[in-house]
Amino acid sequence: MHVRSIKEWCLGKPLPTREMKHERVTNAEGLAIFGTDSVSSTAYATEEILQALVGAGLLFLSVSVPIAIVISLLIFVVAISYRQVIYAYPQGGGVYNVARANLNERLALVGAASLMVDYVLTSSVSIAAGIAALTSAVEPLYDHRVMLGVIVIIGLTLVNLRGVRESGKIFSYPTFIFIGIYGAMFIYGAIQMAQGTFPVAVMPPQNEFMGVLGVALMLRAFSSGCTAMTGIEAVSNGVQAFKSPESENAAKTLMRMATILGTIFLGITFMAWYGNIRPMETETVISQIARSLFGSGICYYLVQGITLIILTLAANTPFAGFPRVASQLAKDGYLPRQFMNLGSKGVYHFGIAFLSLSSMLLLMLFQGKAHALLPLYAVGVFLGFSISQLGMIYYWKKQSGDHNWQIIINTIGFCATTAVLVITFLSKLTHGAWMLVPAIIAIIYVMRLIKTHYMAMEQKLRVDGIMPTIHQDKTMAVLVSAVNKATLYAIAVAQSHSPKHIEAFHVAIDEADIQVTEAQWRTYQQEGLIPSDMKLEIIYNEFRNITKAVNQHVRQLQDLWNDDELVIVILEIIPSKWWQHCLHNQTAKMIQLDIENDPRINAEILDVQFKVKD
Amino acid sequence: MHVRSIKEWCLGKPLPTREMKHERVTNAEGLAIFGTDSVSSTAYATEEILQALVGAGLLFLSVSVPIAIVISLLIFVVAISYRQVIYAYPQGGGVYNVARANLNERLALVGAASLMVDYVLTSSVSIAAGIAALTSAVEPLYDHRVMLGVIVIIGLTLVNLRGVRESGKIFSYPTFIFIGIYGAMFIYGAIQMAQGTFPVAVMPPQNEFMGVLGVALMLRAFSSGCTAMTGIEAVSNGVQAFKSPESENAAKTLMRMATILGTIFLGITFMAWYGNIRPMETETVISQIARSLFGSGICYYLVQGITLIILTLAANTPFAGFPRVASQLAKDGYLPRQFMNLGSKGVYHFGIAFLSLSSMLLLMLFQGKAHALLPLYAVGVFLGFSISQLGMIYYWKKQSGDHNWQIIINTIGFCATTAVLVITFLSKLTHGAWMLVPAIIAIIYVMRLIKTHYMAMEQKLRVDGIMPTIHQDKTMAVLVSAVNKATLYAIAVAQSHSPKHIEAFHVAIDEADIQVTEAQWRTYQQEGLIPSDMKLEIIYNEFRNITKAVNQHVRQLQDLWNDDELVIVILEIIPSKWWQHCLHNQTAKMIQLDIENDPRINAEILDVQFKVKD
Repeated sequence: MHVRSIKEWCLGKPLPTREMKHERVTNAEGLAIFGTDSVSSTAYATEEILQALVGAGLLFLSVSVPIAIVISLLIFVVAISYRQVIYAYPQGGGVYNVARANLNERLALVGAASLMVDYVLTSSVSIAAGIAALTSAVEPLYDHRVMLGVIVIIGLTLVNLRGVRESGKIFSYPTFIFIGIYGAMFIYGAIQMAQGTFPVAVMPPQNEFMGVLGVALMLRAFSSGCTAMTGIEAVSNGVQAFKSPESENAAKTLMRMATILGTIFLGITFMAWYGNIRPMETETVISQIARSLFGSGICYYLVQGITLIILTLAANTPFAGFPRVASQLAKDGYLPRQFMNLGSKGVYHFGIAFLSLSSMLLLMLFQGKAHALLPLYAVGVFLGFSISQLGMIYYWKKQSGDHNWQIIINTIGFCATTAVLVITFLSKLTHGAWMLVPAIIAIIYVMRLIKTHYMAMEQKLRVDGIMPTIHQDKTMAVLVSAVNKATLYAIAVAQSHSPKHIEAFHVAIDEADIQVTEAQWRTYQQEGLIPSDMKLEIIYNEFRNITKAVNQHVRQLQDLWNDDELVIVILEIIPSKWWQHCLHNQTAKMIQLDIENDPRINAEILDVQFKVKD
Repeated sequence: MHVRSIKEWCLGKPLPTREMKHERVTNAEGLAIFGTDSVSSTAYATEEILQALVGAGLLFLSVSVPIAIVISLLIFVVAISYRQVIYAYPQGGGVYNVARANLNERLALVGAASLMVDYVLTSSVSIAAGIAALTSAVEPLYDHRVMLGVIVIIGLTLVNLRGVRESGKIFSYPTFIFIGIYGAMFIYGAIQMAQGTFPVAVMPPQNEFMGVLGVALMLRAFSSGCTAMTGIEAVSNGVQAFKSPESENAAKTLMRMATILGTIFLGITFMAWYGNIRPMETETVISQIARSLFGSGICYYLVQGITLIILTLAANTPFAGFPRVASQLAKDGYLPRQFMNLGSKGVYHFGIAFLSLSSMLLLMLFQGKAHALLPLYAVGVFLGFSISQLGMIYYWKKQSGDHNWQIIINTIGFCATTAVLVITFLSKLTHGAWMLVPAIIAIIYVMRLIKTHYMAMEQKLRVDGIMPTIHQDKTMAVLVSAVNKATLYAIAVAQSHSPKHIEAFHVAIDEADIQVTEAQWRTYQQEGLIPSDMKLEIIYNEFRNITKAVNQHVRQLQDLWNDDELVIVILEIIPSKWWQHCLHNQTAKMIQLDIENDPRINAEILDVQFKVKD
């Protein structure tokens, strides 16, 4: 099977540019599609609070409820702030756009860097949490969680390379089912509570959970719970997908989404507190709640199943968002141009591949644990939120007319998100949050380097009348790796270009090689297959460095025939099947790369291809 | 900094072929150098037995002592068997050599595949166990074990790419220190036992460790402990490093090594039993023993430190062994030829890189846990042992003279190792051992494919008088990606080759592109920078697939000018710094690859390089 057919089999038929238009979605569908990322955060937020509190002792787990209430209020503050982004930027108000338009390049790049990191982390965290839902139900799989996560990411990658778009309506069903199942669980739980039959776990004897709950720990628990807010900005990036009037519909949807998010988050936290649930290594809090309510029956598996599905869909959202942001940054010259290439299916395949590999790497390095990844994630998200809100304050200031109300709302949003950012960063500093600082600095540094380079290059490629000299005469140097049929062909092709001089040379790395090559060359000359006046120069390199030997020889030739244009003839043996390629021409490729890289060499390379048929 | 200087800074000065000779080592040094891999297995073997037994209940942990005694006897059986390999194959008796000489190709490949897998696993397992020694002492690092492991592998890779050889005498000190420290610990422990002051952990109340010890579990515990035997074959691979008489010295060393291995293994197992040590997730058994003996003082850290060091050295041994085996397989045509390339430092850099990446991947997929990797490792090792012993039986049969004694010894060795292989495979089937079956089948399949291909290729490159036709006239097709200074240069270069026909073409992926390119072309034609009679063909591809569009156009040209040789002129813009390369020419490279791969296209490629200076 040819590589092209494999590609087509994996990716499906190509999609022409004219058919790449966006579907519009109803508000309900929009809620489901843009809400996955946000609503799915409830799968881990409560657990995070409990994990932080358990450090102080089991007695303090009840503090989770007031913390969750405070966070729910914050969810509304942030949602109202983003509501304003929707009206101001109906074209899509990602933090990069908002900051670039209203703040400066530096903050826009900080925003862009945090956004890219967040997208990668959204995938890793959601996959890790989804797999945790699975391994809670099927415990023996716990040890294979990293491999399972990697398999899911590979699956998402293939699906996205095929060109599934986020606005696919089919993605809306699981969110509705998720809300339905969790809603049913809450109602069932409430009935049990009312009847006094709600199962409550027995706490270990009092003396085992002594401890002190300091302010630092309270703040850490609070910042842990703030992971519930991740993904809340998704609607503001997809305003154009809504039906007209787009902004109004998107704004309504955002507020509904925030309500649902807050309700589910509070519900889970309350039930966990009521049922004396403690965080465990191998079973999630939600799994414990569902198991205590439903036993190990079908209802339990429904809860775990839909949690896995919603988190997988949440992990899928960056596959639409990340490539889009990367392509915009590439368009602005901050990232390599490959990120702009729309593949045959109309997707940014380079961005998808990059996201996929990065999130796999994170998943592997953090042992497939959402808990280990969340500190980084939360800091990144709130960094983006803060910059976005700051940008909005400046946005309203620039608008004509009275926008005091809007400024006040975004200022509250800015203060709230910045406070969470600072608290999260400080309280999670030693839990991995510090890694974000070098990561973001490095990303910004690289983006600036790339931008500077592209700008300088554009300048240098401008037509200005000064052109490099072009010699009319050619000197051809044929690199001989072994004397065989293909070599004879390459020599004949070089001759057919009628160069002024033609030279053949071979790099030997041991004595035997010198003798065999010389003997063969002489034989074929006697048989008339190689011109009798063509000398084969054999260069012995005692460091076995063929590339370096070729480089030196080419530079000597260049000096010798400095009135000619130098053409280096490189033979490539092309086998008939694609997988056989890696078995040939590797040295030739290294040599070509080396010659290209060397500013002292000014030569063309003639690739003679000897295709071998089966 | 140029890429060459980075390479030199990382890898050091190159080493000429004439200086690549082997040092000889004394028996003591040989013991230390070839013994690391073997002796370091004691760091995890006892723990593995206890982990298997704990499944039956804490009461049965004491069964570990008789199991360890049986395994120690087995160590001697295997050592005596390998002693014969040393005499029969003083040139190096790896399983691949032994099986190829005495058995058939199939078994030789099974042996080779198991050997390669084992080398990778030796690195992953040793790193994982070494990091466990570290995280036992510094508990907060436990969550970062995968990252720490990856860092150590990267370090080993760099050191080995620099060309450190296994026979470096400096590697012998840690083994002596390891034996010294562990010996001292045993003596100190024995004194404590004699005085009755040996610290014994309190067992939980009786009712918590009820359980049944079935035969299956016994066998599993036994096979878990057999991981102590891994690495015992190392001496037989390095006979030539010993002073004359090589075989005698190596044989003596092997038996001493087996004695030391058995003693340390028994010592640890006995102390673990005596001290009521139970296996724990975050602290190794050895760490628990050392901590109970020494508290958290300097002696404790000495034990943990030397354990980390010896395991790191054990992880280093495959960096010498794997590339050597891979290069031999490449020489025999079973692996890509890259594995044969000795880099500038006289090391097989391709093999080192391959090993490094594979063991990192395994470490990440198995969450950096030695326990998870060991089932695979053990099965692979015993598969190699069995094939090796079987080969030796046939070897003695082929020799003239009476070799009954030798045959008996290797038959006992074969039976013992095969028994362990079967027990390990069956009892660890569901713990990951099954993965080895598809892995080894896949490796053998690929090796055979490669061999078949290389053999067919050799046949096809033989000079036989039938040569492809070479057209004397040239048609040149210049691919224009954008109209700029570099493009003008490429056109001028193509003209200087005086082809019969010359054509320029551009692939557009949107309407704006068509117009801009056309307008620029016209402008430069009017300015006389482009010949006025040269037409630019613009091809619009609605699937945004530049590669495919170029392919189709090239094939049309080929049909049109079928009496000419087709030369496709591809412009590469070469920036001045190496890292900037990834920002350019990616599409050009894809196009080149596509044209090379297509058997319908018979063309040369002229790479015109436009070097941009700073």
